[in-house]
Amino acid sequence: MSLYAHSGTWPSGSYILAVTLMKSFAIGLLGFGNVNQTLVELLQRKDTDLRERYRIEWRVTGVASRRIGWQVNAAGYDVVDLLRARSSDAFASDAFARMRGQEHPTYNAWLDAAQPDVVFEATSLNVETGQPAIDHIRAVLEHGAHAITANKGPVVHAYEELRELAARRGKQFLFESTVMDGIPIFSLFRNTLPAIDVKGFKGILNSTTNVILTGMERGLSFDESLGQAQQLGIAETDASHDIDGWDAAVKVSALVNVIMGVRLPPQKVDRAGIRGLAGETVRSARNAGAPYKLICRAQRTESGVSASVRPEQIPLTDPMALVDGTSSIIQFETDIFPGLTITEENPGLYATAYGMLADFIRAIGS
Amino acid sequence: MSLYAHSGTWPSGSYILAVTLMKSFAIGLLGFGNVNQTLVELLQRKDTDLRERYRIEWRVTGVASRRIGWQVNAAGYDVVDLLRARSSDAFASDAFARMRGQEHPTYNAWLDAAQPDVVFEATSLNVETGQPAIDHIRAVLEHGAHAITANKGPVVHAYEELRELAARRGKQFLFESTVMDGIPIFSLFRNTLPAIDVKGFKGILNSTTNVILTGMERGLSFDESLGQAQQLGIAETDASHDIDGWDAAVKVSALVNVIMGVRLPPQKVDRAGIRGLAGETVRSARNAGAPYKLICRAQRTESGVSASVRPEQIPLTDPMALVDGTSSIIQFETDIFPGLTITEENPGLYATAYGMLADFIRAIGS
Repeated sequence: MSLYAHSGTWPSGSYILAVTLMKSFAIGLLGFGNVNQTLVELLQRKDTDLRERYRIEWRVTGVASRRIGWQVNAAGYDVVDLLRARSSDAFASDAFARMRGQEHPTYNAWLDAAQPDVVFEATSLNVETGQPAIDHIRAVLEHGAHAITANKGPVVHAYEELRELAARRGKQFLFESTVMDGIPIFSLFRNTLPAIDVKGFKGILNSTTNVILTGMERGLSFDESLGQAQQLGIAETDASHDIDGWDAAVKVSALVNVIMGVRLPPQKVDRAGIRGLAGETVRSARNAGAPYKLICRAQRTESGVSASVRPEQIPLTDPMALVDGTSSIIQFETDIFPGLTITEENPGLYATAYGMLADFIRAIGS
Repeated sequence: MSLYAHSGTWPSGSYILAVTLMKSFAIGLLGFGNVNQTLVELLQRKDTDLRERYRIEWRVTGVASRRIGWQVNAAGYDVVDLLRARSSDAFASDAFARMRGQEHPTYNAWLDAAQPDVVFEATSLNVETGQPAIDHIRAVLEHGAHAITANKGPVVHAYEELRELAARRGKQFLFESTVMDGIPIFSLFRNTLPAIDVKGFKGILNSTTNVILTGMERGLSFDESLGQAQQLGIAETDASHDIDGWDAAVKVSALVNVIMGVRLPPQKVDRAGIRGLAGETVRSARNAGAPYKLICRAQRTESGVSASVRPEQIPLTDPMALVDGTSSIIQFETDIFPGLTITEENPGLYATAYGMLADFIRAIGS
């Protein structure tokens, strides 16, 4: 039994004052790419703050990825070693010999060995099925650990099931980093806007397409702008997931499922990408004072929610028109606030990892 | 002993799932002007939602104001009667005879008779001292009830004392409605942005001056625009508190005290209002593409925080320039998010009261 079993009695929001005993948490990392590596860096950077303000100690007891296999160190890895171990070579070195686990373990064998209190799931997205991330999170919750993910798949394909499983196990299933890089959108509605009715939203939620459009406005063709974004590491080698609007549609689906309480798979989002736009079209729209943006929309209707992702011309008097490059924006229409808008300007390196760190503090303070 | 004494064991953020028993809360209203009257309307409008989603029942057991005196009905007022009782005449009528309390009660006599679990404090602001609201809130917390206020005075003049008193009594001192009408700014940082470092902020936080500037841009003189805002009920008869930047400075002070953790009284905010601006100056600035806005700023320095409220010309490429009329905006600079901006467009009738309702749900779910 872990120490945080006592945490259910902490008053929400007053953990700063109420918590006096240091609690130690074992962390498991499922996936060890950019997101979870940056998370470890951020945990390390915020270590003093976590100890002094939140009375939280942490150690990483398990790391698993396709590349490095299933690794366990029940005593906790040395963080400097862990961050050096980004390549499989380092994991195979003497310093990491102790991490080497079984050849073909199951999730459960890894969980049993690492005994995590919380698992950060950051494997890659399968838009159509949400797998294998759904299986990961199911196993983590069944094991009795909090499950925190940066992966939208489980949110759009298994939100209700995983939420209910988490509730039954008295654990948290949290996913703040899936939309707007860790800007608190889900927890805004979950924790700070009770008893509010969301009628709809409108936003720019995919940064790759926004960067490409900004490049086209500055004189590039679609292909040139895409190439530049790929060189800068903003767009992936196969960027069609972003360009064709799938990433944005998946985010719309996640928001509709969670914040509007209506089941809407990504396939039901009326979707058009930016592939069809010529550089000249994009530039004349900007010059005419109504630039193109890939706009996400959702609106409650009598029978549910209708949602779309498509390039729209936005007048310069609308704050959406000012959101360039990697910035993003969302405007909610609610029964209380006709317009409540959140903008993220030029997200920093730690933005996505921060969403997971914040979920961690929320989960163990709950 | 009241039922919500058990609420300390509810997990934060999961009250929807975790709470199954209906809890009944006695409410006290200190001040019965526009804010608390609208709050009662909103509580009534959200009554079904409060019962079904949050398992909350409520009744108003005490109402006090300069106009109507100290009123108590331990069984709970009929809400229709209460909302009819906006004038002292109605409170003096037969229907309200039972509310009539002592001639000269103390806070404590009123609290003892009404036995509130939560008190909503919405008396008028004294910028210099924060009184008598500070005394009200102190008495409420000492009595063992949650204190929720729409009054900035206690936040800028007694935040630390009241926060510590609340913690000692295991109660909450909450004030979400004091800045941006109940848009969750304080709870955003308190509940959804843990372990973040706020370096500064910039915003438009006073709607009266923003409405006056918008009117001047449309051709009015300062006096004409002020007169129009007064006719529309947006500006008060004596609007100097807004025009001279005091309201904005008090909001800056509240935010610096709470979110940046640095004590900064309103008098220490470098303050200039909009009284000196001529209509022609405002119109040429707008025509030149850099309209005047009354901009609030705070920035962490080596020795603390420096803060200002003053008219500044803002380029149209900055979203602040697009915020007209009664809308407001704030942009935070943090270590994780270089720019996190929240905009409230055309707040509705219930916006301020909603902040208090949300504080109520937060307090009893804590």
